[in-house]
Amino acid sequence: MLDCAIIGGGPAGLTAGLYASRGGLQNVSLFEMGVPGGQITKSSEIENYPGFFDSTKTGLEFMDTWQKQCFAFGLKHEMKKVNSVQKTGKNFTVLLDGGDTVETKTVIVATGAVPRRAGFKGEDEFFGRGVSTCATCDGFFYKDKPVTVLGGGDTALEEAFFLSNICSDVYVVHRRDEFRAAPPTLDRAIRKENIHFITDSIIEDCTGDAMGLSGVDIRNLKTDEVIHMENTGLFVFVGQDVKNDVLKDDSGAFICNMSDLDQVIVDLKMHTSIEGLFVAGDLRIDAPKQVVSAAGDGAIAALQVISYIQEQQ
Amino acid sequence: MLDCAIIGGGPAGLTAGLYASRGGLQNVSLFEMGVPGGQITKSSEIENYPGFFDSTKTGLEFMDTWQKQCFAFGLKHEMKKVNSVQKTGKNFTVLLDGGDTVETKTVIVATGAVPRRAGFKGEDEFFGRGVSTCATCDGFFYKDKPVTVLGGGDTALEEAFFLSNICSDVYVVHRRDEFRAAPPTLDRAIRKENIHFITDSIIEDCTGDAMGLSGVDIRNLKTDEVIHMENTGLFVFVGQDVKNDVLKDDSGAFICNMSDLDQVIVDLKMHTSIEGLFVAGDLRIDAPKQVVSAAGDGAIAALQVISYIQEQQ
Repeated sequence: MLDCAIIGGGPAGLTAGLYASRGGLQNVSLFEMGVPGGQITKSSEIENYPGFFDSTKTGLEFMDTWQKQCFAFGLKHEMKKVNSVQKTGKNFTVLLDGGDTVETKTVIVATGAVPRRAGFKGEDEFFGRGVSTCATCDGFFYKDKPVTVLGGGDTALEEAFFLSNICSDVYVVHRRDEFRAAPPTLDRAIRKENIHFITDSIIEDCTGDAMGLSGVDIRNLKTDEVIHMENTGLFVFVGQDVKNDVLKDDSGAFICNMSDLDQVIVDLKMHTSIEGLFVAGDLRIDAPKQVVSAAGDGAIAALQVISYIQEQQ
Repeated sequence: MLDCAIIGGGPAGLTAGLYASRGGLQNVSLFEMGVPGGQITKSSEIENYPGFFDSTKTGLEFMDTWQKQCFAFGLKHEMKKVNSVQKTGKNFTVLLDGGDTVETKTVIVATGAVPRRAGFKGEDEFFGRGVSTCATCDGFFYKDKPVTVLGGGDTALEEAFFLSNICSDVYVVHRRDEFRAAPPTLDRAIRKENIHFITDSIIEDCTGDAMGLSGVDIRNLKTDEVIHMENTGLFVFVGQDVKNDVLKDDSGAFICNMSDLDQVIVDLKMHTSIEGLFVAGDLRIDAPKQVVSAAGDGAIAALQVISYIQEQQ
């Protein structure tokens, strides 16, 4: 019987593991199929995680210390895929791919949410080196330079607005000539002088070299005309996949309360609607999608797990 | 007119400043009388801030990178004491000690909460080098060793319980023979084999050297007998002062909704009950009092400030 099963090995899960094991819990396992670290490992540069300010280090190098630190206090890494979590009486059963099960007193789910890729040529090649899905994280790298935004929803236009306060010009590429974004959001973006719209268009290709992205080819779907822009930053906002599958039961229904966007509803203590089940990071409502905030969530969830187990004693 | 006034220079305020200035706000000032850094600068060792795992570095050295980083993107440091914050129409007026005022569109208050000192001999001398006010932060440094806890309230006994899962023995020193802690909390502590109670007693003195605390002298107030214990860890839980003075108006009433413990009520977005006023860190309800969580709050508050200002445009 585990004290705590942590599902997901990004900043939220790792920090929860650090706090749970260092806080005296004896049996804590972190379930993550791959190498822990999360989305940040795909970034080439990080300058907004407080206390880490070294432009020569990549996201992979950034997470290196986390690995050593978070596993230094007894946290176990289980390289296994979790299919689902079931509440069984007072405790929980974690169902693993292949049929094995693990019993645990508490669960912290930190599986995150992953921005969708648009699927254009060069997107994967230049991801983290010019292609980004986070204006807050990477906008500043293009201060006073032009950037391209791909997408037409609320997030795309809000992020375009965010970038317009940092970058010289923001070119919003959208495959239709109508926008899904809420009218006030669209109005604000249209009124902003340095936001420009390129509608009925898609990203056709990227150009660049070992240093990263140098420009984008944009095809107008109506005229088939292709224009080339020399922008070094391309922000893609075409939706995200909330990784909530482990919280579904056999019928596909969620075991805890979820928002309209299928994010887990939590309070400030990272409690879900199920006693003993906690959530941390990008999987929760109102997640700011920042490493430091996800880590903060992980610490909170682990401290609540410790209190919860104490109260049972 | 400032875009944002940040009040308080601990991890929450500094991170808010980093995110606000790096996020494109032009006029952001952080008001902090002393050197920014917060309570953590008094610690001799930190091992639970993810990404920082170097036992040779002190809290002061830990905050060194934060200073450089958080002020690298245009955040201004105002070495001025803030007396209060007033909502004036859509904006705010920050009233400084001496009578000056500053107008600002938004405010983030991150003034924190400070654990009270008990006032025994040696407490200040060994603070951060054996004397601690945070079991989560420092308990692990005394793994499998005996420690002393001073206090008789809920926090003292909850923290004693937390420590009892890490340390060999926990000696709870309390000046009365009755406890203010809730009966279930007290019951759990009494049932725990390695928690021992030393009632009607106070900490008389500390012994130690340049390496830190080596033991405590405990005086029984009824018999006047003094016993010496060789514990190297002493945890003091005698209450805390929530630094909420800047949120009081002339009549002493709070300008926003507060909890019974005089902490600011916020939601997951760090919104208070006043539009444009945000709070981050130990000043808020349910604060876990951890650097990483306070920093996470600061990032959230700053991103919300940016959204709020965008919506006004």
